[in-house]
Amino acid sequence: MVQISRSVVHLIEELSRLPGIGHRSAERLAYHLLRVPQSEAITLADAIRSIRENVHYCKDCYNLAEGDLCEICTDPRREASILCVVEQPQDLMAIEQSAEFRGLYHVLLGRIAPLDGIGPDALTIDTLVRRVAEGSFREVIMATNPTVEGDGTALHISNVLADFPVEITRLARGVTSGSMLEFTNKEILADALAGRQKL
Amino acid sequence: MVQISRSVVHLIEELSRLPGIGHRSAERLAYHLLRVPQSEAITLADAIRSIRENVHYCKDCYNLAEGDLCEICTDPRREASILCVVEQPQDLMAIEQSAEFRGLYHVLLGRIAPLDGIGPDALTIDTLVRRVAEGSFREVIMATNPTVEGDGTALHISNVLADFPVEITRLARGVTSGSMLEFTNKEILADALAGRQKL
Repeated sequence: MVQISRSVVHLIEELSRLPGIGHRSAERLAYHLLRVPQSEAITLADAIRSIRENVHYCKDCYNLAEGDLCEICTDPRREASILCVVEQPQDLMAIEQSAEFRGLYHVLLGRIAPLDGIGPDALTIDTLVRRVAEGSFREVIMATNPTVEGDGTALHISNVLADFPVEITRLARGVTSGSMLEFTNKEILADALAGRQKL
Repeated sequence: MVQISRSVVHLIEELSRLPGIGHRSAERLAYHLLRVPQSEAITLADAIRSIRENVHYCKDCYNLAEGDLCEICTDPRREASILCVVEQPQDLMAIEQSAEFRGLYHVLLGRIAPLDGIGPDALTIDTLVRRVAEGSFREVIMATNPTVEGDGTALHISNVLADFPVEITRLARGVTSGSMLEFTNKEILADALAGRQKL
């Protein structure tokens, strides 16, 4: 019964595998890609191919990199004595955009999540320990997500690093700038009270 | 300041051009494509390339086709005496899925939309007139969208075809199966009353 080109059906199936894209959205995207100038569709296809062919993980910190090392690890202006540990490259990007941190990073490529079968060995903790053991860092900031799994990961890593002469800190936790106390939940307020700062 | 691979930035830009995909979704899709098995990302890239290299419009009806003619125009079991005129290939698909129509189609590739600067010449009306002039159709069903522009397009075409010995009909308009009269708006009820059918 179906009278649609096989290439289009195949594209719709592939687009449906993307997160947040259902079958209807995939259809809409496929028809859009049929309608735009051919060069625009080919540019998108090549951009997808290119990230898988050119982008790898940095050998040192597991950030995204086009060479062996990422742009941060090769930048001589970064403070090499302070290390910020994040779960994913996109967390690193978010912190970079705050422009508050000038040190180096370590990307774990995940978090410890026993319910999903992800243990410490699935992360890049070995490399992190090796980097810390080399002794050039005076502080390691745990910037995992403020979730049960992120906190658990941070705790595990701080235990692993306990014997090294390095200060281990974590991101401040409290009320968010621009929010209203009235609508702030009790866990956030408890964090904000426990971590209150001198004015 | 931004410390992200150029290939990733480029892919995020290209994904942001898709309809309904904002910058945040584009980022999420790009990171997803970095994480999935390489073959899955490459398959998607090739599927996009393939529709633009293999899919064209049917020479007769402007449906999507991988050869010169689409699967419907080349199917000898279709009733060649009745023609259904739709705006887009996806409308044709929707009608095919109802399995109520066994005739041929003509895809206009748009609708007359003066506010968007789309006149009759931008559509495939010339080819439609030529097909009707060949005289093999006894009925032409206007199945443009039930919108101001779709109705206007249907009216324009029925004027253009007025001199040919062919019956011109349009899709029935009324209440939708499964809906509640209580929540049905007045335009729909007016259509349903005006077009009431014998029980």
